[in-house]
Amino acid sequence: MSVKLPLLVDLKFDRTKVGEALAQTFADRKIINLATSQDKDQDLSDAGYALLWKPDFRIFAQMPNLKAIFSGGAGVDHLLSLPQLPDVPLIRFVDPSLTTRMSEWIVLQCLIHLRKTLPHLDEQRDRRWSNIRVPEAREVTVGIMGLGVLGQDAAAKLQVMGFNVIGWSRTAKQLSNIETYDAGGLEDFLKRTEILVGLLPLTAETERLYDHSLFAKLRKGGALGRPVFINAGRGRSQVESDLVAALEDGTLGGASLDVFEIEPLPQESPLWQQPNVVVTPHDSAVSDEMALMRYVGQQIQAYEAGGSFDNLVDRKRGY
Amino acid sequence: MSVKLPLLVDLKFDRTKVGEALAQTFADRKIINLATSQDKDQDLSDAGYALLWKPDFRIFAQMPNLKAIFSGGAGVDHLLSLPQLPDVPLIRFVDPSLTTRMSEWIVLQCLIHLRKTLPHLDEQRDRRWSNIRVPEAREVTVGIMGLGVLGQDAAAKLQVMGFNVIGWSRTAKQLSNIETYDAGGLEDFLKRTEILVGLLPLTAETERLYDHSLFAKLRKGGALGRPVFINAGRGRSQVESDLVAALEDGTLGGASLDVFEIEPLPQESPLWQQPNVVVTPHDSAVSDEMALMRYVGQQIQAYEAGGSFDNLVDRKRGY
Repeated sequence: MSVKLPLLVDLKFDRTKVGEALAQTFADRKIINLATSQDKDQDLSDAGYALLWKPDFRIFAQMPNLKAIFSGGAGVDHLLSLPQLPDVPLIRFVDPSLTTRMSEWIVLQCLIHLRKTLPHLDEQRDRRWSNIRVPEAREVTVGIMGLGVLGQDAAAKLQVMGFNVIGWSRTAKQLSNIETYDAGGLEDFLKRTEILVGLLPLTAETERLYDHSLFAKLRKGGALGRPVFINAGRGRSQVESDLVAALEDGTLGGASLDVFEIEPLPQESPLWQQPNVVVTPHDSAVSDEMALMRYVGQQIQAYEAGGSFDNLVDRKRGY
Repeated sequence: MSVKLPLLVDLKFDRTKVGEALAQTFADRKIINLATSQDKDQDLSDAGYALLWKPDFRIFAQMPNLKAIFSGGAGVDHLLSLPQLPDVPLIRFVDPSLTTRMSEWIVLQCLIHLRKTLPHLDEQRDRRWSNIRVPEAREVTVGIMGLGVLGQDAAAKLQVMGFNVIGWSRTAKQLSNIETYDAGGLEDFLKRTEILVGLLPLTAETERLYDHSLFAKLRKGGALGRPVFINAGRGRSQVESDLVAALEDGTLGGASLDVFEIEPLPQESPLWQQPNVVVTPHDSAVSDEMALMRYVGQQIQAYEAGGSFDNLVDRKRGY
């Protein structure tokens, strides 16, 4: 019988759901769950794996036997920025449910801006039978920055809805269904893009990427009149003072934001009440606890059976 | 050379757009456009075709040589209810653009209710980082009533987005991708349906169909908690006093309405300001003037070349 190394869990999610999902998935493995009072001061030295979301970096020194670290979400910037991160395989969470939910949110936001839902709701509030022209999806080009699993799924679904879709990624990517650009083609990509969808991970290169000069390069005078910025990647990729300025000076006609420089978005942020802006509380694609535990369980099982881990993070690349 | 019979046009659409589309499409055919002052009192007796949207029935008596009547929209109830409607082929407007736009609207409304957009926007207005649970599309069953071109397209796109989709039509329809019910299966269909999408034409059978007793049969206690009613068919199929009562007593948890018993929706209607209700001004799928003229032009051309008309209305059935 193979040795089942303990799993250290430090997630800032719903405690009840995490507890239930752990109990169902890891019935025959020792779990150290830092969210429970009895495990809080446990000896971590025999932990073989760690499942983490925004952990305290000081726990790393207490786990000399770690074989792998799992991120509790699709992003890993919350781990890569930590000091003393052990040099073990780092694994992203990839899940069909996470992908589906992200695409739901992105298609919803693109349709909200296409069909001018916020202006319509304003008219409704005033009991006015409005006469706003709404363009058709094929008149609008959506440009997606970030062509990983999430970006590709969103692209395919936006195409089904009739949008023109183009894509951008740092390194060139050949996709059968959409035209793509890489680093060198950024200006050309932005010039065609009327709805910009951000799905980039947070790295040194993407930090503060979405600024006023970038917004000013997007396509003006298309079917929507002014371009729209949608971000479901990371908040620190957007310069929020520039975003507010671009909305106020007409460089942008609207936005949908699920991520922010500081989360929760501070009460005093002017983003809450900008016209034609949708703010959602970083819930575009919430990790489902059961799906997460199943994923981690399957990866550990494969590893302990002599296999390797999937969806490894490239630390140099940053995702 | 074949004789090109004149086309009588009586549409209540944007005059400029209609004028431009007519000029581009029927350069070598006589057009009598009742929206223009010079044609208003024209002799109509040589008109061979009529393109109509909510016309004055008295024009029929003036057109003894009519070969066919085209509806300016997908629905034909505005014609079938008229006295003295000539016994000539009656043709519905079927257009890919109309279908795409309708599906945009339906997918948008289903996603708005799935992702709890209206409660989110309320929280945003209060500058609150909300904590509303949003279900995933696969947890929700959308039931579509009306499985013509529009219903089938919407069904396919809702499935791509991850929803469970079932369908209902008066007479049984076998579709490869979705489970369908017919007249006898209505109760079973409603019992499974959490989001009801109405796409039915207005007929004697569908008038006042969506009433409190129907809403009460929809699925309760599913992922959305309470069921949602979406109507993009015809307003006179819904009993609006029942709809308001169902929203207020919790039988329904929300609605999206593009059509109303009386349009424009009267200022005093309580529907404007019901919580979790989206009202749009019958613009879910507006006929595009150019597409309409091209369609009518092609049909007439085919007929004059010895062919027959497509998309004929069955007057007994009512659509």
